[in-house]
Order: sequence, then structure tokens, then C-alpha cells
Amino acid sequence: MEDAIKVGLCGLGTVGSGVFRLLSENAALIRNRIGRNIIITKVATIDRYDNLGLDFSQTRVLDSVDDILQDPEIDIVVELIGGKTIAKRIVLESLQAGKSVVTANKALLAEYLEEIFHAAYKSKGTLGFEASVAGGIPIIRSIKQGFSGDRIDKFSGIVNGTANYILSAMSRDGINFHNALKDAQERGYAEADPTFDIEGIDAAHKVILLMAVSFNTLFEYSQLYIEGITGIDPVDIAIAAESGYVIKLLGRGLRTEKGYEGRVCPALVSKDNMLASVTGAFNAVSVWGNFVGETLSYGAGAGSHPTASAVVSDIIETARLINAGIDNPVPPLNIEAECLTKKDILPIDDTESEYYLRIMLNNTEKSINSIIRILSEADIDIRSMGQKPVSNDLPTQKNLILFTEMANEKRMQLAIQKLNGLSFVTKPVRMIRVEH
Amino acid sequence: MEDAIKVGLCGLGTVGSGVFRLLSENAALIRNRIGRNIIITKVATIDRYDNLGLDFSQTRVLDSVDDILQDPEIDIVVELIGGKTIAKRIVLESLQAGKSVVTANKALLAEYLEEIFHAAYKSKGTLGFEASVAGGIPIIRSIKQGFSGDRIDKFSGIVNGTANYILSAMSRDGINFHNALKDAQERGYAEADPTFDIEGIDAAHKVILLMAVSFNTLFEYSQLYIEGITGIDPVDIAIAAESGYVIKLLGRGLRTEKGYEGRVCPALVSKDNMLASVTGAFNAVSVWGNFVGETLSYGAGAGSHPTASAVVSDIIETARLINAGIDNPVPPLNIEAECLTKKDILPIDDTESEYYLRIMLNNTEKSINSIIRILSEADIDIRSMGQKPVSNDLPTQKNLILFTEMANEKRMQLAIQKLNGLSFVTKPVRMIRVEH
Repeated sequence: MEDAIKVGLCGLGTVGSGVFRLLSENAALIRNRIGRNIIITKVATIDRYDNLGLDFSQTRVLDSVDDILQDPEIDIVVELIGGKTIAKRIVLESLQAGKSVVTANKALLAEYLEEIFHAAYKSKGTLGFEASVAGGIPIIRSIKQGFSGDRIDKFSGIVNGTANYILSAMSRDGINFHNALKDAQERGYAEADPTFDIEGIDAAHKVILLMAVSFNTLFEYSQLYIEGITGIDPVDIAIAAESGYVIKLLGRGLRTEKGYEGRVCPALVSKDNMLASVTGAFNAVSVWGNFVGETLSYGAGAGSHPTASAVVSDIIETARLINAGIDNPVPPLNIEAECLTKKDILPIDDTESEYYLRIMLNNTEKSINSIIRILSEADIDIRSMGQKPVSNDLPTQKNLILFTEMANEKRMQLAIQKLNGLSFVTKPVRMIRVEH
Repeated sequence: MEDAIKVGLCGLGTVGSGVFRLLSENAALIRNRIGRNIIITKVATIDRYDNLGLDFSQTRVLDSVDDILQDPEIDIVVELIGGKTIAKRIVLESLQAGKSVVTANKALLAEYLEEIFHAAYKSKGTLGFEASVAGGIPIIRSIKQGFSGDRIDKFSGIVNGTANYILSAMSRDGINFHNALKDAQERGYAEADPTFDIEGIDAAHKVILLMAVSFNTLFEYSQLYIEGITGIDPVDIAIAAESGYVIKLLGRGLRTEKGYEGRVCPALVSKDNMLASVTGAFNAVSVWGNFVGETLSYGAGAGSHPTASAVVSDIIETARLINAGIDNPVPPLNIEAECLTKKDILPIDDTESEYYLRIMLNNTEKSINSIIRILSEADIDIRSMGQKPVSNDLPTQKNLILFTEMANEKRMQLAIQKLNGLSFVTKPVRMIRVEH
């Protein structure tokens, strides 16, 4: 057996300690699979590590990453400290030094997509980022290698476990957003500051990476449309359920004749759709290829062990390439360097969707006629219409529920402005997109 | 750009013509992804091919595979003729000649697992068999590369679309097996002779391959327990549904302390399980790793285009390795040659399961007491018990429905023999395993 593959691990938090544990617990199995040992020779951490129950007999624990970056013996640098300052330095300096890098840092990759992937393309090392999207689900690898012959036309996925946990709890227990968030925080599924998860920012980071890998193109994170779940009302969840839908926070990328769409927003998903069955903190991503058709990959989207599984799969892939003495035959964004370009994401105004509208109004025939006229003038066709009582306290008011055909987003927004201006519409119109 | 990668395609049936079409339609995209063209220089077929609408201007069409096997210019031999005679020769001779092979032939691989994989390990070429299990779903690649750091403990999957289509139709429409099969045949989801699909043989071939890849071990196909769906009664589907279950044909592999379990049989699957949502001709495979936890991959399990997608993903992987000038760094069964062993599959008698029992009987207190005593003497604990009327024509008869705790299979079989011998049991006991 040859020398061990040497790993430098930056960060020993939730995921970092999971990686350490996996490489230790499954060491014999991994050695049988790749013919070499993988050893974490150095760990950089500023946190307490003596209480993690890990065996550091082959590892030097440092409080700075510099010693890892400067160590010529280290083959693979694993960046798991998060953030965008030191983490960025680790990734870029390692790639520039020809080292291979494995990271789970979606914020960093998404917001500096161009800079980091250009560095990855130039480097002799590989950049593994499987763990940055949907935790343990091997979705990056499935798109790059499993569907390597397909033109990817669309993906749509539940890529934030916290938001899905909250929406599942609201749906299951009929509770409101605030109480569901509190429940998620008590159970450890949401952080004390849950902004990134509930506002769709974390999902958006993953969507940019999925778009880049699916469409073999660089995109600008700031162009992505992002809408969170804080405005979701239990009333809409209940009405959606009666119509055969569940509400999910979906991240989506779409190839159209006009260009590439990308968005994160709540959406009504038909109960027949596999994504509707994904409850709790789980993730799932559907991908459509022009030959493979519809696919779906499901699993734990976060957590120490599942994310560690994805990190280690990248470490093993890199170790196998080092073993074989070659560069990665799969380019970072699954396209040859000379073909890599950057493209704009279509503004949300230029996209189309089906829509769910809930309009609270004083119930008169005339009011409904006015609403239909406004939608009709905006070229928005109504697929179905129904009424629901608002509450016993407001007997004169009704919720008018509309499902539209495919319509242009800008026209819909203008129509909603007009609807909100009607005297008999008593609350701002609720609009949720419907997953087609 | 270097010379094209040259492919010899054996077989131009459903999948073969799909591969030809994919490589032609997506040629530009594939060239951008791998930096080289992939050209099918030779096709061997004995069927008519002038009516397929394919462009053979770069391809010589032959009526024998010999010219492909003997052509030193061909880099990759794609075996899509099926069967176990010529196909076996193609695979073995190509591997022995150091050529790379891609095949979708699960029957061949499963029944000659040891011989073919030993040849694959010895060959300088690679053996790609992604398309042999679950069509377009990249499950082989996910297990070998996505979960490469995990000890795989279990998989359970719907790997035969025909059987799943029939069971879905029975469940949706309340029709019996015979009519559902007829429907499947009329719609092209079942062949004129459906034996392989409905008796579980096709699923069993895939289970052996999934076991080999998951457990990094050779197994003997003939040791696998196989039970088809021809005995499934609409009554059991209806009763299962009332209890929160659907009936699926599941292929399963399990690592236990006693050894490896493997089986194909109908099973009750809880509606909360993602596999329960898989309807129609779709496939899905759940895999459990000791770090990644539960995962599921879903997609089209058959059909020209989805299967072609999987075949081409293997062609592209091989082309990339040829490009890089190296052998496959991922061994055929994901374990180094010197660690590869063959293991027995545990006999079904030595396994444990939860069970669903339906016992048709003349309804007396005494008869139920006798049944409980027989199960109790066999160490089988009852989780729940209920009664259902049989029909208006048989008012004195009842269906006794039992769900058991985990119990030993042999004891269950002996208990069923005793139950069938009771004078008041009017029909043979129906037993279906419950997916845990």
C-alpha cells in the first residue's frame, strides 16, 4: 500500500467533526475501496475540541489555517469553517497552489461563483462541492455524471430543510408561521437567527450552484429572484390542500427560449408530484433531462453525518484521482474551459407561471365581475374560481380563490396592484405561484 | 480537438436506437462537455433499420458483431442486444481485448456476475452498467461514488416498472391482477409474455447487481428469494389501504449481523414512505448509508430515451477516462481487486420480517383463539388484529386481518401450514411481508 492521502481540515464544527468521525469509523472500508488510507494530518479550529470524543493521535490541531495552506504534504484541503473571508482565502490559495479543495460553503461559492470557478478551472487541483447543495444527496454528481449526456431543461427542488420543516408543521398541525418557527427552533431545525433559511437566501445559494452545474454556465447570484416563506398563511395552506396542493419553498432553474430562469419562492405543488411527499427537514431535487425525463433525488439536506457523507465522497473522488496520477476528467462545471461563459438570469418580470390568488372581499356579484375584468384586461386566463367564507366574525366577507393559466409575471403584478386598489377588496391580494 | 472517441454499437432495438439518437441530437453539447466528439462508427443489427429516421453517414451498419469485436480502432463496445449467448461473448471478448464495455444487460450480469466482473477487474477497459438497473436513475453511480464513504446497510426499491404499473392500476381502479395486466399490455408497459416482470425475475437481476455494488461483494443469483405479484388480490390491496399501506413489488438487500439478505417480493409499504408515492411505470430505490442516512432516487426505470441516457452517461465517463489516458479509478464493484470476495445470501428461512396475514374463516370465538395460540406457539407476536366481512354471499365468513411484529420467516411458514390445516379456515392464508 502506498502512502496515505493527507487531508487538512479547516473547521471542526458540526460538519467538520462529522467528517473526522466518518473517516475514522469507516477507515477500513474506505481503504478497501480506494487502496490507500486517508488521514487528516492537520485540523485548524478555534473552538473547543477536547469534548468531541475524536482521536487526534494522527492529527495536529492548530488554531490557524496558515500551516495547512503552506504544508506541501497536504493533498486535499477541506474548507468547513463557513463565512466568506478566511474561507475564500483557503479555497483560492489552495487552488492556486495546485491543491485540491473540498467545501460545503454554498454562500461563498454562490456569491463568488465566477472568481472561484475560474480559479478551479485554472488549478491542477479539483474543486469538490457536493456537500454545498442538499447535504447528503449526491445531486451535483448526478447532474454532472449521471445525466452527462442530457441537456438539462429544468430542476425544481426543496433545498432548505428548515423552511420545509416549518411548512410541513404548518400543514400538519394547522399552526401559523410564528409557532412553527418556534417549534423548529426548539427542535434544533432552525437557528436562533433563522433569516437565511426562512427568507430563501440559503436556498438561493444552492439554486445558483444547481443552475451553474445544470446549464454549464456562470450566473450572477444578485440576479436571482428570492422570496421567503414568512408571508405564508395557514389559510392558504388549508385552501391549497382542499384543491390537491401542498405549499413548498421551491428553488428552480429553467432553460427557456428566452434565456435562463432562476428563482426561489413558495409554490403550490400538486399532491401527485413526488416533491409534495417530502416532509420535515428532508430535501429533494427533481431534474429534467431531454432524454432521461423526470428524475428526483431525496435525502437529508443537512446535519453533521449526511453532510459529512457528501464531503467525504468528494475527498474519496479526489483521492482516487491522486492515486491514478491525473487531473479530474470532469470539469468543475461540466463543460470545457473554452466553452464556459456567463449569462444573465431572466428578470422575474419576463417569466411566466400559473398563479393562485386569494382575494378577500365584500361579497357582491359586481365585485367579482370587476376582478374578472381586471384579470382579463391583463391577458390572464382563469382556470378555476371558488369562494370560501373568511370567518364567522366577518359574515359579509368572502375569500375569492382563483387559479390562473400560465401568465406573464409583470402583468400579474400590475393586475394585483389594480385589484388591491378596488374599494371592496379588504386585504392585500395573496398570490402564490403554482408549480407547473 | 483530438480524434473522436469511436463507439461500436451492438443492437439497434429500443435502447440501441435511443443511444444513437441521443449521441446525434446532443452531439454539440457532449462535445462541449468532454472536448471530443463521440462517433458510432459501427452498428451491428439484424433488424430493419431504414425506418428509424437515423443518420448513418458516419456509421457502417453490419449484420454481425465480429467486425466490431475485431476492430482495433473502436474504443468502446456498447452491448444492447440482450440475451446471454452473443451478448456474453461481446462483453467478455471486449474486456479481454482491453476494450471498454457499456451494457444494459442485467440478466447477463446477474447470472454470470462472478465471471463477468472478474473479467472486468482484469481488463484495462472499464465496464459500465448504469443502464442495467432502474433505467435512467443513476443509482449505480450514486452508490459507488455518491455514497463512497458510507457503509451501505440497506437498499429497498421498486425496480420493475411493469409490476409497479400493474399494482398501481389495481390500487387506483380496484381491478384484479388479470385485468391490470391486460391494461398494461395494451398500453405497452408489459410484454406479450410478461413472465420476467410479473414473477420478479427482472427485479431479481437488478437486486443482485445492487447488492454487489452496495456490499462490494459477489453473490450467487440462484440464492436470491424471488416472489412475484401474480398472487396479489384486490382485497389485500383494499385492506392494506385502509391500514395506511400500499402494496409494492420491492427488491431489497440488507446487511445484518448474520450475513446478507436479498429478496424480491410484494410488500406492504407505509403511505409515509416515499416509495409508496411511486406510481405507474416509474422506479425508485432507497439506499441507507451509515452516515448519509436514508436516500431515494426516482425516475423512469425503462424506455428508449431514459435507458439511453444511462448508457450514454457510461460512454461519456469512459470517453473522459480515455481522454485523460487512464484506467477507471473507480473499481467495477467499488472495492479493490484483492478485497473482492463472494458471499452467500442468507436463506429466506433465516430472515425476519413483519407480516400481514389474511385468514378467511367461519367466524367463531373459538376459531380466533386457536389462531392466536398457533401464532403464540411459533413465537409470533401480534401487533394488531381486525375483522372484515368477506362478502354478502358468505355472511357467516370473515376475513381475520393480522399485523405481526418482527418474526422469523421459517416459524411463520410453519405457522401458516398449521393455520391452513384448521377446519374452520376456509381458504389458504394470505401472507404478505411488511416493509419495516
